[in-house]
Amino acid sequence: MKKLINQADNVVVDALKGMEAAHPDLLKVSYDPKYIVRADAPVKDKVAVVSGGGSGHEPLHGGFVGRGMLDAACPGEVFTSPTPDQMEAATKAVSGGKGVLHIVKNYTGDVLNFETAADLCQAEGIDVEAVVVDDDVAVKDSLYTAGRRGVGTTVLMEKIVGAAAERGKSLKEVADIARKVNAQGRSMGMALTSCTVPSAGKPTFELGADEMEVGIGIHGEPGRERMKVKTAREIVEMMSDAVISDLPYKSGDELIVMVNGMGGTPLIELYILYNEFAQVAKAKGLKISRKLVGNYITSLEMQGFSLTLLKADADMVKLWDDPVLTPGLRWGV
Amino acid sequence: MKKLINQADNVVVDALKGMEAAHPDLLKVSYDPKYIVRADAPVKDKVAVVSGGGSGHEPLHGGFVGRGMLDAACPGEVFTSPTPDQMEAATKAVSGGKGVLHIVKNYTGDVLNFETAADLCQAEGIDVEAVVVDDDVAVKDSLYTAGRRGVGTTVLMEKIVGAAAERGKSLKEVADIARKVNAQGRSMGMALTSCTVPSAGKPTFELGADEMEVGIGIHGEPGRERMKVKTAREIVEMMSDAVISDLPYKSGDELIVMVNGMGGTPLIELYILYNEFAQVAKAKGLKISRKLVGNYITSLEMQGFSLTLLKADADMVKLWDDPVLTPGLRWGV
Repeated sequence: MKKLINQADNVVVDALKGMEAAHPDLLKVSYDPKYIVRADAPVKDKVAVVSGGGSGHEPLHGGFVGRGMLDAACPGEVFTSPTPDQMEAATKAVSGGKGVLHIVKNYTGDVLNFETAADLCQAEGIDVEAVVVDDDVAVKDSLYTAGRRGVGTTVLMEKIVGAAAERGKSLKEVADIARKVNAQGRSMGMALTSCTVPSAGKPTFELGADEMEVGIGIHGEPGRERMKVKTAREIVEMMSDAVISDLPYKSGDELIVMVNGMGGTPLIELYILYNEFAQVAKAKGLKISRKLVGNYITSLEMQGFSLTLLKADADMVKLWDDPVLTPGLRWGV
Repeated sequence: MKKLINQADNVVVDALKGMEAAHPDLLKVSYDPKYIVRADAPVKDKVAVVSGGGSGHEPLHGGFVGRGMLDAACPGEVFTSPTPDQMEAATKAVSGGKGVLHIVKNYTGDVLNFETAADLCQAEGIDVEAVVVDDDVAVKDSLYTAGRRGVGTTVLMEKIVGAAAERGKSLKEVADIARKVNAQGRSMGMALTSCTVPSAGKPTFELGADEMEVGIGIHGEPGRERMKVKTAREIVEMMSDAVISDLPYKSGDELIVMVNGMGGTPLIELYILYNEFAQVAKAKGLKISRKLVGNYITSLEMQGFSLTLLKADADMVKLWDDPVLTPGLRWGV
């Protein structure tokens, strides 16, 4: 294993120190328990939005802490759920009196731990709602999940819901928007290569020199099918079919689209993939209102990408366009 | 070779189509000859800033086209200089009557071709100045270069000089600022893995399972030394020493710092590296005024990073803070 780290068991702490050093204007870091909050937390009379999950998916979630997106993020060890005490402490640290929304990717550990944290916070008088993201169409159940996995829609949800909270909406309103985003968002991923969890020291899985894994999870969990590598066009068509037919997205729908790199994919390839998707969308009468092309929810150094579609009405697009000021996503300020 | 492409010889065109589809609000693409211009080009009575170079370093340069940065970028084939006709056409397309600055990374092909293009444009009455970036401290001459190679400082120069042009400064003033940025900027890179040029189909070089190449170029050109992989701390200390001692940067200097991923490096590792550099800077009395941590000048899917330091006075920091609206760098709007 070759990695730019000091010690496998210090990866998360060292990276948190780097985030703290790089972005003191945007965020603050607690190390025991570990969580990141926006620099001006708690924001009074605003619903606070908290997420978290295993590390290794950067910029998700810590890179999305800041004005107009997350109030707090709880980083677990690499590909490992954070613990309830992290979530509880983060929730208390950002609670501004108007309630707290937990955005939870659907992995068994994350869901259980966020539930425990919510119970503890509610017992102390903090109003907490949770929304679970389960947008991955690839498999029904998986290695770490009952039901569908939560992947790319999380990024779009954190942006949109963060904007709704910033606008002063109530906890119920913010949670309703989050549920609507989840209901209208779908994703699927694929990989050309595995990644290596630092503490494991060896690749999570093996793929042949001419093979790809379609429908892969963000921790390298098995997908739908292992097959010979195809062209970008063939891959995008195959994945688009799976994602579009699932909701289904229909001619005339307006979309927010994310073509997301898994961490080790050159940007030049992501643009090639985006071009292929734009042609698919055109042929199917889908209108792309907004898009992200880049690394937003990654799997360490994995080569591959995921496609996320969100059917977005005008209100959702307005929330999307609202200012955001985080290490990973920034516009309007 | 596994890549998310259609055909090795269509990579650049397909990616340009993706950029055009993704960012019609920011840029326009010409395909014959190939160049990217900002959507509102030519901007009247503004110095136009043009750069370019081989593809495979995205977001550099095309991703930096837009308000407050580049007026045009000329993409060559992967790791291959663009041709004079591209540069000439791009220069003419963005010329707004106040002159055009060429920002040229110091590679023999790029320098010669930009010179030819400048001569052609000047013969037609367009005032052109060129500034060559040669900031890489690793080696004196290299595979594709007489003198030092041009690397990370190019990114910082494009931002700062783009802002100066946007403020209405003259060609001479803009060129002077560019020369000052080059004089005060230094970089060095390293790699854990090679990358594979699509048309070559095999890795540019081979590195042992426990080896790294220190001082590597952005095309995989040999660096200073091949050695066993060290910790992030040791690597940053070694590279910081080389970069800091070169200018030299001195206690009290204010810096703009870039910790840049080579394309295949997880963001979590870049933050670990940034943390190490922040400690080195503190120990040496260097003040970090501004910073970038991410993928800005890449080498396809290479794993590794580069460190760029720029001694920045207050005026330079002001230009840095000016609004920028490009696919790869955006703030203030």
